[in-house]
Amino acid sequence: MARIVLKFGGTSVADMGRIERAAGKIAREVALGHEVAVVVSAMSGVTNQLADHCNAITPIYDAREYDTVVSSGEQVTAGLMAIAIQKLGIEARSWLGWQVPILCSEVHGKARIEDIDSSKMLRHLGRDQVAVLAGFQGITERNRIATLGRGGSDTTAVALAAALEADRCDIYTDVDGVYTTDPRIVKRAKKIKKISYEEMLELASLGAKVLQTRSVEMAYKRDVPIQVLSSFDDAIGSDLVGTLVTREEDIMEKQVVNGVAYDKNEAKITLINVPDIPGVAAEVFGPLTDCDINVDMIVQNVSSDGKVTNITFTVPKEDLDRATECIKNIDKLKGADVRSDKDIVKISVVGIGMISHAGVAKVMFQTLADKGINIQVIATSEIKISVIIDKEYLELAVRALHTAYGLDAESAA
Amino acid sequence: MARIVLKFGGTSVADMGRIERAAGKIAREVALGHEVAVVVSAMSGVTNQLADHCNAITPIYDAREYDTVVSSGEQVTAGLMAIAIQKLGIEARSWLGWQVPILCSEVHGKARIEDIDSSKMLRHLGRDQVAVLAGFQGITERNRIATLGRGGSDTTAVALAAALEADRCDIYTDVDGVYTTDPRIVKRAKKIKKISYEEMLELASLGAKVLQTRSVEMAYKRDVPIQVLSSFDDAIGSDLVGTLVTREEDIMEKQVVNGVAYDKNEAKITLINVPDIPGVAAEVFGPLTDCDINVDMIVQNVSSDGKVTNITFTVPKEDLDRATECIKNIDKLKGADVRSDKDIVKISVVGIGMISHAGVAKVMFQTLADKGINIQVIATSEIKISVIIDKEYLELAVRALHTAYGLDAESAA
Repeated sequence: MARIVLKFGGTSVADMGRIERAAGKIAREVALGHEVAVVVSAMSGVTNQLADHCNAITPIYDAREYDTVVSSGEQVTAGLMAIAIQKLGIEARSWLGWQVPILCSEVHGKARIEDIDSSKMLRHLGRDQVAVLAGFQGITERNRIATLGRGGSDTTAVALAAALEADRCDIYTDVDGVYTTDPRIVKRAKKIKKISYEEMLELASLGAKVLQTRSVEMAYKRDVPIQVLSSFDDAIGSDLVGTLVTREEDIMEKQVVNGVAYDKNEAKITLINVPDIPGVAAEVFGPLTDCDINVDMIVQNVSSDGKVTNITFTVPKEDLDRATECIKNIDKLKGADVRSDKDIVKISVVGIGMISHAGVAKVMFQTLADKGINIQVIATSEIKISVIIDKEYLELAVRALHTAYGLDAESAA
Repeated sequence: MARIVLKFGGTSVADMGRIERAAGKIAREVALGHEVAVVVSAMSGVTNQLADHCNAITPIYDAREYDTVVSSGEQVTAGLMAIAIQKLGIEARSWLGWQVPILCSEVHGKARIEDIDSSKMLRHLGRDQVAVLAGFQGITERNRIATLGRGGSDTTAVALAAALEADRCDIYTDVDGVYTTDPRIVKRAKKIKKISYEEMLELASLGAKVLQTRSVEMAYKRDVPIQVLSSFDDAIGSDLVGTLVTREEDIMEKQVVNGVAYDKNEAKITLINVPDIPGVAAEVFGPLTDCDINVDMIVQNVSSDGKVTNITFTVPKEDLDRATECIKNIDKLKGADVRSDKDIVKISVVGIGMISHAGVAKVMFQTLADKGINIQVIATSEIKISVIIDKEYLELAVRALHTAYGLDAESAA
């Protein structure tokens, strides 16, 4: 017997039929003798519709009222899911953020969970009652509803699993696990059976949008094993058919490279002829931070003449115009030439085994060179290597790297 | 300067345009220097849609979960209305039932408000902040959301007005007041300027569906003046253009008859040859009460032979089959003949002045006789006279009575 948290995303509860299907999976876990808590998202489309209503009145709305409006989507699903579980003869009740309570920071619209008082819910779980918690929401110290930002229900699920000291957190979604790369690009992409938190974090933030990054961070910190699996398969979490995200120590066979990810959502900015003096990097990135622009890769070369240098970095595409505007207003960069490029893509290989294996980078660079693909920028961390290339080589690069690192399945997925 | 509560029904907040229009009216009241609290219904259609979702899973749902689901409709409107008011440069915030809190009985689906702790809201009103309360909902002692039943937002508004000791409760709806009769039947129906709680109660329960009966009862008990007015006119509550429902003492000119109401939703049951013995009425109406059937008019004549008598009563049309079934199972009525009739209508004249005026009934009976309309059943109270007639005379009877009591407007409405 275990205690497990199951999370169902928007597409998994999109209509009454799907809610009943999810309830069937929950019932099977209960039949196995498990204590079950469930976290639900809003029915797909509902959050967007509610956000549109707010925007239709004014785009500069009070985030506290926005949260009151959009949090209702999860409230509806929680009640409906409780009804669907009860229909199967199993005790269940819905829980809203304020009923638990789930205490959040006051940053409305993207609040952080600060504390979950699980004592009341635990008493109900102990009486064989399934708890159905509305995801994405909590309550602030001022007694207002706050939401966690898009994908926040994943974070709710992991935080609840941590608070309940659950054995596992199963994230039901519309894919059956995490893949070595995007199966739409590489037919021979393989489902990963086990992956470490660190690798998943790199993959999540690199555009493999299966799990919200913050939920993986929290799982890592609180040591909650997450399983990603499909709500459209017949299997349930206890069949262990999905991808398990867990501690590095729990993974026996460590792949040197576990996945090839890409991110089409970045743009590149290059500053040419920047004075090569101490503090110039701070001059550039300070104002960008002040403008709330998230800078990703940063590369600065040693200057050949000791007087001027070039700095290249990437920002989210939607922030490119704001970022160039911001840079043009920096005094010390008046002489610099600012060039931007949207036609790029970031390709990354990720693997925990990289730490102890030399030559991973060499394989990457050689593979790309063999295909005639020019590398514009390189950045590395302990468990990943990222490069920026021209976006038209995206599919070619991903396929070649997937093969080069021995990730191809024997037969096409 | 006054403190007023404004309530906007489902059609008055049906879309963002209407919500903004309502916000405009609120802003005008604020500009007059009033302290304003607002109660909102769900956008029209939303409550039905949410109820349909519950029913689609199972018609025998847990009422606590149903309440969690349907109460979200008012939550959404409250947040949107707060945003719309803020857009006009006025401070506002939404309040949910549990935030006030509004304490309710545990009869989920048709809970009663037991207490409103208005202290927090009053502090905010004192800071010139408009309070926007989600109607129709409260919280039970067990910390669950409970709803008040259809039309419950009227009751929320009146209860809030009582708790805040407000000077007036304005109910914005899709008609511009209470009329002397249905303007669709009598073109010369007049808007009533002032009407007593007692009269309004009779009219509300007689089918003039402007206000929920329970809200009028509460206004009567707590002495809250209600104004009914249209959200589609340009006028606001402080223009006093609607119908004011208030204490009898505050109405200078008391009409003998203030309105002619009708109710098409009743059916008549006649029991013939019932043994005329003590306790027989209890034998009939006890079981009907146990079956939760609401009996309205009851007439029993003295029997001519002292052995058997006839009993006639009316029940809601939708309960007719259940009621006749219920009666057939009563032992002491085995010899009685049970006849039912759906083709009837109840016509009532209502007026507080009736108490001190003789001849009101005579005018009614004579008027109907002059038109050749047979009266099947008569029932009276201090301030109303009701008769049952064949439904095909409905319009004729209403028009004739409206004229006979001098209610016709000089020109058509």
